[in-house]
Amino acid sequence: MTAPDRHATLEAYRARVEAALEARLPPASELPGRLHEAMRYCTLGGGKRIRPALVYATGEFLGVDPAALDAAAAAVEMIHVYSLVHDDLPAMDDDDLRRGRPTCHRQFDEATAILAGDALQVLAFESLAEAPARAEERVATIRLLAGASGTRGMAGGQAIDLAAVGRVLSPAEIEVMHRRKTGALLEASVGLAVTLAPDIAPATRAGLTRFASALGLAFQIVDDILDVEGDPTLLGKAVGADQARHKPTYPAAAGMAAARERAAALYAEAQAAIGPLGPRAGMLAWLGAFIVERSS
Amino acid sequence: MTAPDRHATLEAYRARVEAALEARLPPASELPGRLHEAMRYCTLGGGKRIRPALVYATGEFLGVDPAALDAAAAAVEMIHVYSLVHDDLPAMDDDDLRRGRPTCHRQFDEATAILAGDALQVLAFESLAEAPARAEERVATIRLLAGASGTRGMAGGQAIDLAAVGRVLSPAEIEVMHRRKTGALLEASVGLAVTLAPDIAPATRAGLTRFASALGLAFQIVDDILDVEGDPTLLGKAVGADQARHKPTYPAAAGMAAARERAAALYAEAQAAIGPLGPRAGMLAWLGAFIVERSS
Repeated sequence: MTAPDRHATLEAYRARVEAALEARLPPASELPGRLHEAMRYCTLGGGKRIRPALVYATGEFLGVDPAALDAAAAAVEMIHVYSLVHDDLPAMDDDDLRRGRPTCHRQFDEATAILAGDALQVLAFESLAEAPARAEERVATIRLLAGASGTRGMAGGQAIDLAAVGRVLSPAEIEVMHRRKTGALLEASVGLAVTLAPDIAPATRAGLTRFASALGLAFQIVDDILDVEGDPTLLGKAVGADQARHKPTYPAAAGMAAARERAAALYAEAQAAIGPLGPRAGMLAWLGAFIVERSS
Repeated sequence: MTAPDRHATLEAYRARVEAALEARLPPASELPGRLHEAMRYCTLGGGKRIRPALVYATGEFLGVDPAALDAAAAAVEMIHVYSLVHDDLPAMDDDDLRRGRPTCHRQFDEATAILAGDALQVLAFESLAEAPARAEERVATIRLLAGASGTRGMAGGQAIDLAAVGRVLSPAEIEVMHRRKTGALLEASVGLAVTLAPDIAPATRAGLTRFASALGLAFQIVDDILDVEGDPTLLGKAVGADQARHKPTYPAAAGMAAARERAAALYAEAQAAIGPLGPRAGMLAWLGAFIVERSS
């Protein structure tokens, strides 16, 4: 038996979520055309699709209906994209480049970028509400994603981040911020698939939850490290941006060596959490390594 | 038997939705405090609360559980408030005054206003997902509100509005824009209560739907008229703003006399639609008159 080709599986996940997003985004030919065009520009044809990959890998491991996973994968990616579109605005991080292309407000205009983000957020909840799953599970996924993207999750993390610009935070404070800003949505990616598998064994659920929590924080620490040491060509955006803006990052708070150590410890924690799930969780383990060892 | 005091009922609805909003908004003492403070500033202690009043009046007529109506009333008002906060931003309508107070981005800052709007939108869907109703009905309310607030509803109407600045639209085109920008959410206010009453008779449902549709458009035409002829003290904002910005309005497209006629015809249509529902729909009829005859 040959080893499964993990890269090919990841590519298949990407193609799946691309199709799921395409199917849910209104066509640019439909009024208001410019807004729909902006939503499609920001959402389609780019991105690492790490959150959808976590949805698919978790859901396949748990035997969830693939069509329900499509709805969840599209929803979590739309929330992620809307947050990027709003975070890139001049009043927030004021970024010109995203995924190697002009940001939404640079390609279109600020008003369109604000509305595109707003509309992507609606579409995410609509996608979950229309998922081919029992109503109880649909409601549970909506509650989960809402919790992960509101002020106790992603939006709250962005607010803490903005308020911390220029201030010195401790590594522990940085972790609180990172867990909300980035961790919550990565955790939710695993959590959505878990929610769609209501008969899951408690130990399996606990292992997946610990995996997602450790990985969510590791992801953002790696992001901080890449902002210092990454290759701008691979990243599709400028490096050193966090530092130039006096943004609180893990390496700035704890030093680069400590940041690497923390990311490695969290990676080990994530792998230990899913170890007992056996070889069928191999794609999740591979994704964990992919996320921590990525260069973009 | 004395006639019911409709004003007192409206005040009771306002007190109810205020409490429902207060219960759902995170406290300003909770991190991130400034974001929570902004959300509370924009949402509490102001506004006509017309949408919640439509939810309550429809729901009481249909015998829906009041606690489920609280969830729907809070949700629709949070969507309305988030849309005001984003529409007021410098990149959109650039308004300084709202409900007689500085707009969110003037009182706080632009980044906080963007995030406050984003977070209010999440909270609206969370409120519906947590309503004390069967999961099937909760999912149906979420689909309804999503449809009314996305690009085929409110956000789409705002995009059409922005794209039309400085252009001459026909009255028919204005109506398409108004039905999305304002009408969709007013219709949804009635629709949410209808959705929470799944055993409703088809004729009752049809009457309420026609009522809401006519009233939703009438509301925005009256708004256009008030922007020309209203009292800024009563409105809590400047008048003549639409004209100064070359915004497409019904009076500008059709003339003031035609605008008044159209509003009156829509009002008659709304009343005719609920006439067959009898005196128990009296509060809805009164609200229709209140909306069309309002001075703010």
